[in-house]
Amino acid sequence: MEDSIANLISTYHELNAAVVDELDEEPTPLEFMRYVAKNRPFVVRRAAEYWKAVQSWDAGYLNRMMGDEAVKVVVTPHGNADAVVKQEDGLLAFIEPHETFEPFGRFLADIQKRSKMGEREYRNVKYAQTQNDNLRNEYESLYADVPKNIPFARIALDEGADAINLWLGDDRSVTALHKDNYENIYVQVRGQKHFVLLPPVEMPCVNEQPLPKGRYVPSEHTDTLGIQLDTEAEPVPVAVWDPDTPDKLTTPYSHLAKPLRVTLREGDMLYLPSLWYHKVSQSVGEEGFVCAVNYWYDMDFSGHFWASNNFVRDVVNGEKMKPAYPELETDGQT
Amino acid sequence: MEDSIANLISTYHELNAAVVDELDEEPTPLEFMRYVAKNRPFVVRRAAEYWKAVQSWDAGYLNRMMGDEAVKVVVTPHGNADAVVKQEDGLLAFIEPHETFEPFGRFLADIQKRSKMGEREYRNVKYAQTQNDNLRNEYESLYADVPKNIPFARIALDEGADAINLWLGDDRSVTALHKDNYENIYVQVRGQKHFVLLPPVEMPCVNEQPLPKGRYVPSEHTDTLGIQLDTEAEPVPVAVWDPDTPDKLTTPYSHLAKPLRVTLREGDMLYLPSLWYHKVSQSVGEEGFVCAVNYWYDMDFSGHFWASNNFVRDVVNGEKMKPAYPELETDGQT
Ligand SMILES: O=C(O)CCC(=O)C(=O)O
Ligand SMILES: O=C(O)CCC(=O)C(=O)O
Repeated sequence: MEDSIANLISTYHELNAAVVDELDEEPTPLEFMRYVAKNRPFVVRRAAEYWKAVQSWDAGYLNRMMGDEAVKVVVTPHGNADAVVKQEDGLLAFIEPHETFEPFGRFLADIQKRSKMGEREYRNVKYAQTQNDNLRNEYESLYADVPKNIPFARIALDEGADAINLWLGDDRSVTALHKDNYENIYVQVRGQKHFVLLPPVEMPCVNEQPLPKGRYVPSEHTDTLGIQLDTEAEPVPVAVWDPDTPDKLTTPYSHLAKPLRVTLREGDMLYLPSLWYHKVSQSVGEEGFVCAVNYWYDMDFSGHFWASNNFVRDVVNGEKMKPAYPELETDGQT
Repeated sequence: MEDSIANLISTYHELNAAVVDELDEEPTPLEFMRYVAKNRPFVVRRAAEYWKAVQSWDAGYLNRMMGDEAVKVVVTPHGNADAVVKQEDGLLAFIEPHETFEPFGRFLADIQKRSKMGEREYRNVKYAQTQNDNLRNEYESLYADVPKNIPFARIALDEGADAINLWLGDDRSVTALHKDNYENIYVQVRGQKHFVLLPPVEMPCVNEQPLPKGRYVPSEHTDTLGIQLDTEAEPVPVAVWDPDTPDKLTTPYSHLAKPLRVTLREGDMLYLPSLWYHKVSQSVGEEGFVCAVNYWYDMDFSGHFWASNNFVRDVVNGEKMKPAYPELETDGQT
């Protein structure tokens, strides 16, 4: 069985180069559909250069449009929202960020100020990263500056975007390795994002563990965040392997992973296919903040793709359950 | 592991109805690409009604165009070209047909004559079924009567047809359950074809066995065909389960299969996706023969599809190799 899993990953690599295709211009709906069919990413450099958002979203403009609106901001000690944290007892847990609301103007000023300070000068990292269609809700006044849909995706997938999200933070925030059930079109507006991407067949490499859930909560009298475990919650399966520290928390398959890396600059567009694992870090732009917008389209659960990925997960988890049998002669044939 | 395999098949069925979609008209290239992405079949009734082939290919016309040309014809005792045969010793073998060349006119007359006779009146069944692009070679003079490509497929897949094949025979020929590495557009010209289709995830149901290869060869003084085994040849993996006799030669998964059935009538077009198992039987048209044309387009081996199917095969074959261990306590965790 181990061999079958290793074989799956190496067959995939034989048939697919570990690079992100670079397209000269936006694909047609048909060209896009070919990428969806293969479940392979691509980047289109400068595709969004002409968007009002990319042209105009400097701090002054954003403050004029959004200044007094209360927005949801997550806070973590190290920029680690929705991440695996090693607790004092050495055990791992999946910790959600502390959530607050504050006026957008104050939040943005804070982000910019912190970007100017040295890394050790401040504690707690803020990130606006509510993945709940916030650009059509909280940030509605900015929504006119981006297209309501990505035409090639809308036409190819025959559906509107399920969510359009705005992401704003500084370079201390890192989004931990995870996957989403969405076809994702991700557009960089300010600063840069550094994506590390793993195809779904590398599930056996990422060491998914059922972890207890918790949340960062502020202490009563200081601004220190402590961890509060949710003892009622079902453990959630979380990838604990990190492609940037590939020798830690490995599985027998981690060394077979061939992470793809791509950096998005202002105006670049990435197609991040459904169920791909992604880890995302960032670099601030000229004004000391990072901003991006992404479009989530529902993936298609029919066909073989979902069922096949489910099967890989099942086999890998079954493998972990396997008793350590003594060596016996096999009685089967090929 | 058994559970994982059963789970794969049932998850697939939960997400995909066991029916062949019927389209009102030919899909656009994009609509077609959605079917390719899902690896799901569809039929377009009467799509080819306007083709010269469908309008004109009666026996008189075919004889005028092809009468004296020598064509390759395969001969089998029961209409079982490329099929599993139980030998006298009870063992199974994969037997290829006897191949002959004869003038098209004589072959067609023979097919028509046999169709008029009762089933027991004649021995040996003929079928023109060379899947080697014969319509652009042997049957070149008929090639002008069909489109050189199926436009929606050519545009979607961005390639010409790898092979265009003509099939001509009578209703005793049955093509045994098998799969091809091609996206297949199949068009009925005369008579009917009855397809039984299984998706690639049902590989565990079809009982692929490595069988010795052989060939039908004529006896010296009679027209009886005998089997000659090729003792040098590597055994070939062949599906031995037959969806029409579902209780024989089963695997533990055969009962989970949900075969799709569709009959093509004159002018109908079927998209048969790559790696789908298909068994094909037929009914003659008014003039006592069956004729069809199909277009094979190379499938895409990149992306996850090929690798995933390979993995299913690997796991199923690994499962067969598993020793019959004693029941032990497991020591693993989820
Ligand atoms: O930009 C980020 O920090 C993460 C993006 C992400 O996870 C997503 O778009 O799904
Ligand atoms: O028409 C037949 O007999 C079989 C067709 C077939 O196997 C194919 O088109 O791949």
